[in-house]
Amino acid sequence: MRRKSFEGAECPIAKSLDMIGDWWSLLIIRDALRGKRRFGEFQKSLGVSKNILTQRLRTLVKHGILQSVPAADGSAYQDYVLTEKGRGLFTVIVALGQWGNENLFGPGRSPTMLVDIESNQPVRKLELLSQDGRRLEPGDTAFRRLG
Amino acid sequence: MRRKSFEGAECPIAKSLDMIGDWWSLLIIRDALRGKRRFGEFQKSLGVSKNILTQRLRTLVKHGILQSVPAADGSAYQDYVLTEKGRGLFTVIVALGQWGNENLFGPGRSPTMLVDIESNQPVRKLELLSQDGRRLEPGDTAFRRLG
Repeated sequence: MRRKSFEGAECPIAKSLDMIGDWWSLLIIRDALRGKRRFGEFQKSLGVSKNILTQRLRTLVKHGILQSVPAADGSAYQDYVLTEKGRGLFTVIVALGQWGNENLFGPGRSPTMLVDIESNQPVRKLELLSQDGRRLEPGDTAFRRLG
Repeated sequence: MRRKSFEGAECPIAKSLDMIGDWWSLLIIRDALRGKRRFGEFQKSLGVSKNILTQRLRTLVKHGILQSVPAADGSAYQDYVLTEKGRGLFTVIVALGQWGNENLFGPGRSPTMLVDIESNQPVRKLELLSQDGRRLEPGDTAFRRLG
């Protein structure tokens, strides 16, 4: 199925989805945030075909989410590292992971958690706050065109 | 392309992606968070075919993200409303929207912002914090199997 493109859309959510492209891309970004840089590392982690991985990496580079750099080991290979824009997707990945941990694992399971290395404690749950610090639920908010 | 299923995966991010299914589903959830409930409302908003929308709504109901309820107007139609689990995806949607607003609009554009209705001010940017309130960057964190 060919998805409608949301490129012209004014909604930042639709535009973001259009740019990140698909689930593979988000999992590549997850792996890059964990420090993976090599084609082979991504392939091993994701179990994805070379063709698809090549295509997704190319799209992510084209959109400025990853950049390709000479391999850290001095070999002829390319490494893929996140740009500042790509690192900005960290919050999206964390939000997805926290939702998954809360909703998709049965009792008694020990899922993978994101921990703060310094304290070795799980990070705080992401919370949406107003400018003056009130905790906001969906019904407290609205999408507005500002400016 | 048939995506590898991550259903058995231990990674909460991969599991979440597998459950939400695709971009359409996330945009349906966005619309449901904005208060849309009717098949026709989703269809108009997304410009998606009836077939695809039917299939996505069914999957979201099956996974307990939406529930179908008798129409609010007393007609024979079904409305679709978010469950508690579905409302938990609010943070994912907000994170995507904030990233999009920061990265995908040129200068001088006025994108759609999420505002706190009470103050009519944009919400705060989501921040990842440690238990003791330090702001965390990707490199300050690691995925760990706890338990």
